[in-house]
Amino acid sequence: MSYGKYLTKVREKRPLVHHLTNYVTVNDCANVTLCAGGSPVMSDEALDIVDISKIASAVVINMGTLNERTVKSMVIAGKIANDHCIPVIFDPVGVGASTYRNEVAQQILDNVEVTVIKGNAGEIGVLSGLGGKVRGVDSVSSGDSADAAIELAKIYNTSVVMTGKDDYISNGKKTMKLSNGDPLMDCVSGTGCMLSSVVGCYVGAIDASIYSIAASVGAFTIAGEIAAKTSAGPGSFKVNLLDALYNLTPSDMDTRMKIE
Amino acid sequence: MSYGKYLTKVREKRPLVHHLTNYVTVNDCANVTLCAGGSPVMSDEALDIVDISKIASAVVINMGTLNERTVKSMVIAGKIANDHCIPVIFDPVGVGASTYRNEVAQQILDNVEVTVIKGNAGEIGVLSGLGGKVRGVDSVSSGDSADAAIELAKIYNTSVVMTGKDDYISNGKKTMKLSNGDPLMDCVSGTGCMLSSVVGCYVGAIDASIYSIAASVGAFTIAGEIAAKTSAGPGSFKVNLLDALYNLTPSDMDTRMKIE
Amino acid sequence: MSYGKYLTKVREKRPLVHHLTNYVTVNDCANVTLCAGGSPVMSDEALDIVDISKIASAVVINMGTLNERTVKSMVIAGKIANDHCIPVIFDPVGVGASTYRNEVAQQILDNVEVTVIKGNAGEIGVLSGLGGKVRGVDSVSSGDSADAAIELAKIYNTSVVMTGKDDYISNGKKTMKLSNGDPLMDCVSGTGCMLSSVVGCYVGAIDASIYSIAASVGAFTIAGEIAAKTSAGPGSFKVNLLDALYNLTPSDMDTRMKIE
Repeated sequence: MSYGKYLTKVREKRPLVHHLTNYVTVNDCANVTLCAGGSPVMSDEALDIVDISKIASAVVINMGTLNERTVKSMVIAGKIANDHCIPVIFDPVGVGASTYRNEVAQQILDNVEVTVIKGNAGEIGVLSGLGGKVRGVDSVSSGDSADAAIELAKIYNTSVVMTGKDDYISNGKKTMKLSNGDPLMDCVSGTGCMLSSVVGCYVGAIDASIYSIAASVGAFTIAGEIAAKTSAGPGSFKVNLLDALYNLTPSDMDTRMKIE
Repeated sequence: MSYGKYLTKVREKRPLVHHLTNYVTVNDCANVTLCAGGSPVMSDEALDIVDISKIASAVVINMGTLNERTVKSMVIAGKIANDHCIPVIFDPVGVGASTYRNEVAQQILDNVEVTVIKGNAGEIGVLSGLGGKVRGVDSVSSGDSADAAIELAKIYNTSVVMTGKDDYISNGKKTMKLSNGDPLMDCVSGTGCMLSSVVGCYVGAIDASIYSIAASVGAFTIAGEIAAKTSAGPGSFKVNLLDALYNLTPSDMDTRMKIE
Repeated sequence: MSYGKYLTKVREKRPLVHHLTNYVTVNDCANVTLCAGGSPVMSDEALDIVDISKIASAVVINMGTLNERTVKSMVIAGKIANDHCIPVIFDPVGVGASTYRNEVAQQILDNVEVTVIKGNAGEIGVLSGLGGKVRGVDSVSSGDSADAAIELAKIYNTSVVMTGKDDYISNGKKTMKLSNGDPLMDCVSGTGCMLSSVVGCYVGAIDASIYSIAASVGAFTIAGEIAAKTSAGPGSFKVNLLDALYNLTPSDMDTRMKIE
């Protein structure tokens, strides 16, 4: 199947992506889900998610602005998803920046079977045990090799997306390198969170194969390339990124993905 | 009074619209309130709203990302508004999607005298008892008749705005159909929430007549039509929607409203 | 040092600005921090901030949507910052609008040594004891004199930024008046919050002198002037404001700042 066909499939299926996410970039996650072809629902109240998680196509757990109440909800939602064979995407925002974030990430990985872990090079480095550096929620690690992604995928028997100058995707056996995107993506808060939402759309609509994940990363980063061309800075770039993702064609996917 | 005069009145009065709303679209609600001519204030801490609600021109209760703490605050704010004869706009986001949302919506309707209920066809269908389908927070019902809106208005002796391809407004006795807007409005997260804020501005500044409500729906959906003309996708559409609402003229209202 | 050199310094240093802020404008605060040259991190969980606050370049405390949990975190973060000689910027959003906001502002000022207080004329008037009027979170006071800013700076032995038609900066001994900006800044929710983030970048990267603070206010308001020229309304203005701040040059700072 061509990568373009993944895009078409997502739009046909219109996956419902349940987010337990931070309050900084939540609006961007909702809008990027719509532009990618999915339907977003955000809910983090334990009483509510019992019903919401089990009808979702995918559950995205993002610990950007975690607190004790929402961490409990994240574990509950993840377990419900596991019980119903719904894929879980985990974005360990800022793991390595505080003891509490390290503990929460571990708690989630211990209690929830995670389908995809998506993080920057610092976060993936920390979780893999190979070492990684974060400063606040930004990566300081260079991420110039796939090692940490491969290692982490093996530890948790999961797939890993590690973003950076190049993006690496690994399921422990097979590893891909994607080289689309634009430096402006680092100048907008939440592009990492948005990517997790797009991964949720593709994995939720199709399957958790490395090809679906690669298609989702390709869709988002090609949209970034297209958006950058007409942007005067980070403000217009975010607007154009949503437009570009919404207007992305299967042919864009088939011709522009730089994948190894 | 022409509908254009409602617009002028709102800008003159600059109504203070107190929101107890979700963290997904709250920024859009604040900005749309400013662009409609009002002044937004967001607060959901029980200790705070005692003073805030009673000086507001209108209170908007939106249960998009409810939790136990904020639900309590919603009921308190609604009761304070009732005590001070301040109109309450209720947006039952996602009612029908979970047992908890159904219970909360009922709790609010049982404890607060609501001036306007604003929802999509699925939500209004669920609340009216005539049946409605929601998927996450999106409507699956078509909303091609005003029946549910009329029924719900009668049950709670209130006014109802039911959005969809056409928008219906009913107070149980009189019913109007508005046909402005653009399909791009469904591609942006939170246009429903934003409409509730605009209804709050008009009802807060003028009165809760069906004409004020119609003017608010007209202002927002005409702005949507204008915005769509120059938009490349959902990203630029949201930006242009705020600009168009801010620049809307009384003459736009008088000449463009498609109302039956 | 020319004001342009402050801009260069901030970009070189890339200060980590820890925000405990409201959920209405938090995304704008994150993006404006990036565009100003800093790195934002948002966290309000007590367990988390123990590690986050102490590595920050500056801590921004904004009480826009306060609740009992986050107020406790604000005090903890402020004390940690004090212990580590990290500057604290306090934005007392809506003080004067409710008894609770007055109490919380006092609690923060009693427990945290604040480096800069940033507010509109109403808020600074209320805190200074000279009188100020707020309506919701908007100022009704005119702010046509520096008196309240000077008085407040003396009371708490701190620096004060008071925004309005003109912006005043005072440390109690020296007072400056800045006259950049554009009326569109009042039509966008959160420009006040965004300014606090930019102050955090400059004070965090350089020092808490009145010149650093003036440079931060100048950078933000000059960006506002530039943005306004190509904006059709508040929607496009916010987008352009981020772009303009990102593209601001030292020469813009040196030639455009209207300062007395």
